[in-house]
Amino acid sequence: MREARKGMLLVISGPSGAGKGTLYSRLLQADGSFTFSVSYTTRGPRPGEIDGKDYCFVSEETFAEMVERDGFLEYAAVHGHHYGTPHQPVLDALEQGRSVMLDIDPQGALQVMEKMPECVSVFILPPSFTELRRRLEGRGTEQPEEIERRLRNARGEVAMMGRYQYLVINDDVNAAYETLQGIVDAEKQRSCRYFPIVDE
Amino acid sequence: MREARKGMLLVISGPSGAGKGTLYSRLLQADGSFTFSVSYTTRGPRPGEIDGKDYCFVSEETFAEMVERDGFLEYAAVHGHHYGTPHQPVLDALEQGRSVMLDIDPQGALQVMEKMPECVSVFILPPSFTELRRRLEGRGTEQPEEIERRLRNARGEVAMMGRYQYLVINDDVNAAYETLQGIVDAEKQRSCRYFPIVDE
Repeated sequence: MREARKGMLLVISGPSGAGKGTLYSRLLQADGSFTFSVSYTTRGPRPGEIDGKDYCFVSEETFAEMVERDGFLEYAAVHGHHYGTPHQPVLDALEQGRSVMLDIDPQGALQVMEKMPECVSVFILPPSFTELRRRLEGRGTEQPEEIERRLRNARGEVAMMGRYQYLVINDDVNAAYETLQGIVDAEKQRSCRYFPIVDE
Repeated sequence: MREARKGMLLVISGPSGAGKGTLYSRLLQADGSFTFSVSYTTRGPRPGEIDGKDYCFVSEETFAEMVERDGFLEYAAVHGHHYGTPHQPVLDALEQGRSVMLDIDPQGALQVMEKMPECVSVFILPPSFTELRRRLEGRGTEQPEEIERRLRNARGEVAMMGRYQYLVINDDVNAAYETLQGIVDAEKQRSCRYFPIVDE
């Protein structure tokens, strides 16, 4: 039995605090078929960050040029800086049979799903809004107003969960991870990206 | 966290000798969410077979009437008798949140996929045509000409594997079963049939 495979673009999204980042990192580490997508940003590098590895650090002008020639799968402004997922490296990876995973907020995820409808989209849900608040407050990194804003956003984002192909509740992180990995493994068997050759 | 689920129609198909029957029985036994679909047939009951449980035994007239009013998801003639999968019980089960599994030859599977495009279709492949021949001969139930006919059919059926959503190689039956079960578990997380409710 021989076989050929195309890569998949996996979009992991969910409200802030749902735990998508943790699941993303764990899967990226465990599943060697996935490549990390290096985002572009107009903010300056923090100590220890390496250009081209952690981020591609570019000027506002370069960023604007890339937006103009449709160079991003999605982009957004956060705290006065721009962040974007470049299109071409994703296409190159998929062509070469490698998979790409994106950990991305729901606004960006919807942009990616529109540009690449063949992507696999997974929405991570918190078990409750009370728990979501507990997690956001537990981080201790956001101001109270920012937490309230994220909680308001979360309601709107959860209401749109039907736009994603798969839904995973992150109540217990180990269980959620296993479910996510199961989805990824199943998607590898899809006839649109898996081409087995039956031997004589 | 509360949730609601719709059932799924799972179509397991593949060439004769690929091992779909074994995988089907094992999954039906292991996964309580699945219901066995009772086929209709015009052949007489064999000793021990119970009407309405193993098959619904009907006359050629009744069968023809059901065909006429589009009562079958698929039907076929085998050795002078008719066999069919009734449509209504499948719809009823799905409505009630139960899932239905069909173990069905590729000709029937394509009929079902056309009538119910929302079904989940899995095609089971043999690792090689040599191994397929070995399995068919090993059964000792078919005449040599029948085996040759099935092997010829298998080539045509394998060529159409792209029509199915998922492909599973049945080289090792335990590995194939695990892959199949993984596909089923992933499909349970689909937003078209899984409706979680995030608590306050």
